[in-house]
Amino acid sequence: MKITALAGGTGAVKLLRALYQIIPAQDLTVIANTGDDLQLWGLSISPDVDTITYALAGLLDEAKGWGVQGDTFSCRAMMGKLGEPTFFALGDRDLALHVHRTSLLRSGDPLSRVTERVCHSLGIKARVLPMSDDPVRTRVQTPTGWLAFQEFFVRDRCEPEVLDVDYEGAGSAKPGPGVIEAITSADRIIICPSNPISSIGPILAIPAIERALIDTPARVLAVSPIIGSTPVSGPAGKMMVARGYDLSATGVAAVYSKWLDVMVIDDSDADQADDLRPIGIVPVITETLMTNREREIALAKTIVRALS
Amino acid sequence: MKITALAGGTGAVKLLRALYQIIPAQDLTVIANTGDDLQLWGLSISPDVDTITYALAGLLDEAKGWGVQGDTFSCRAMMGKLGEPTFFALGDRDLALHVHRTSLLRSGDPLSRVTERVCHSLGIKARVLPMSDDPVRTRVQTPTGWLAFQEFFVRDRCEPEVLDVDYEGAGSAKPGPGVIEAITSADRIIICPSNPISSIGPILAIPAIERALIDTPARVLAVSPIIGSTPVSGPAGKMMVARGYDLSATGVAAVYSKWLDVMVIDDSDADQADDLRPIGIVPVITETLMTNREREIALAKTIVRALS
Repeated sequence: MKITALAGGTGAVKLLRALYQIIPAQDLTVIANTGDDLQLWGLSISPDVDTITYALAGLLDEAKGWGVQGDTFSCRAMMGKLGEPTFFALGDRDLALHVHRTSLLRSGDPLSRVTERVCHSLGIKARVLPMSDDPVRTRVQTPTGWLAFQEFFVRDRCEPEVLDVDYEGAGSAKPGPGVIEAITSADRIIICPSNPISSIGPILAIPAIERALIDTPARVLAVSPIIGSTPVSGPAGKMMVARGYDLSATGVAAVYSKWLDVMVIDDSDADQADDLRPIGIVPVITETLMTNREREIALAKTIVRALS
Repeated sequence: MKITALAGGTGAVKLLRALYQIIPAQDLTVIANTGDDLQLWGLSISPDVDTITYALAGLLDEAKGWGVQGDTFSCRAMMGKLGEPTFFALGDRDLALHVHRTSLLRSGDPLSRVTERVCHSLGIKARVLPMSDDPVRTRVQTPTGWLAFQEFFVRDRCEPEVLDVDYEGAGSAKPGPGVIEAITSADRIIICPSNPISSIGPILAIPAIERALIDTPARVLAVSPIIGSTPVSGPAGKMMVARGYDLSATGVAAVYSKWLDVMVIDDSDADQADDLRPIGIVPVITETLMTNREREIALAKTIVRALS
């Protein structure tokens, strides 16, 4: 059973690494958000692609949910002395990937090819596909103006009021190699419990990708990243509201309503099942909070079973 | 008294940091070899400029003679996993400078401007001038072919037989901004105890620089990097012989004979004074081995006195 997952970073990787463990690795394809990508210190950084890569390679700093476990931050300290910005915490091991990627990109390889090489070097058997080789940049409108996603997310710690979110370049971006095929030829599609606006949103903003989700014969299942009215992590709340959605699992389903078949919601949101059925979405009610490895595996198994 | 020093890296910095301490910093200008520069991991690395910079900033790993004190090597280990070459030991703090430089070079700043910015950021009051903003690449001919300098020096640990040394690009390279003026308007010029062929040689291979050394009214003093028939460090011996010079302080003087006025030789080489006087070079006999800070300072003071 070939599974294709759409994923952001930190919110997605607990589920992805569990899936990677319970299904044959070569049956898993991950389409990764690149709307958060940024240039820092002259380097090309793809935070969500990297978080997924580290998670599947067993290198992720699991306590933080990003970066490489046991990393040091010597380079960053020196960068500060040299007058470079240090708001984005790049560890020294992590930096290797950015330097390597930047070097390959400059030699002409597209991001998809670079990602394939990195996955191969790190022994990852699943496929990780950047949503596009073209630049798409998520921006957040605040009362003081538009911010690049990482300025809002990391530098300003999600503190500014959110008026709107957009995806610069998405309208004309081509899906990365294999992305459309991974959607149309998958047996099942899983939307990870990622921020629907800033992690899954950029992927959906590429017209050919949303079209493929509408057209695919595969069943599409999403896991709500919101329990009650609280996002499990990150700024999903502010962004959902800014975009006119309810801050609830049902609100998430509304973002995906054009093509969603199954919605996994938390036990504590069981009452929302009745809101999903009328809009043609099958609810799956289970424990969705992945606080340890057993729960990650349990949720992944529940999802695979629900899709059988 | 304005002093301009021509310098390589490790061999030169003991004397340079002593000069930096005993004369007003703004009176010291260092013209640095860039013939060893290399591209690694897509980054632009200038080993001699960096060693000088670290030494003057008080950041140098003095035990090794290169790199940043207390550095970590996390990035390099990860680079190995990613399939990048790791023969050149770039520490994580050191890496910051290369990433920063590469970013500035790509944005259009020449190496001279980048070096000026870095020196300013690190609080260095002396001027460090790369010999040229144009690429000059020292190559070493061995029985198996031509090697880039760092391939010979670091990767192959100076083991191959040396047939010849050349300086690709030097013939058409323009001196860096301020270099010629630093030679023609200096009160005194010091050639550091660096490898005459691979550290000072590339600087001299730029025609306008050698011309300026011939034309300058300033007295020019060199410190021999060879004591007896043994180079204090590095592959100077093989290279001197390959280029047809005696492996001795007098041999070093012969490399510089067109414009050298004063040669500092070690006490143990006092008998060579008689070989220098006939070719118009004034010998200064002193202890030249800089095994600790006191000896560095003592040699620097002897030099300044000899030039008074």
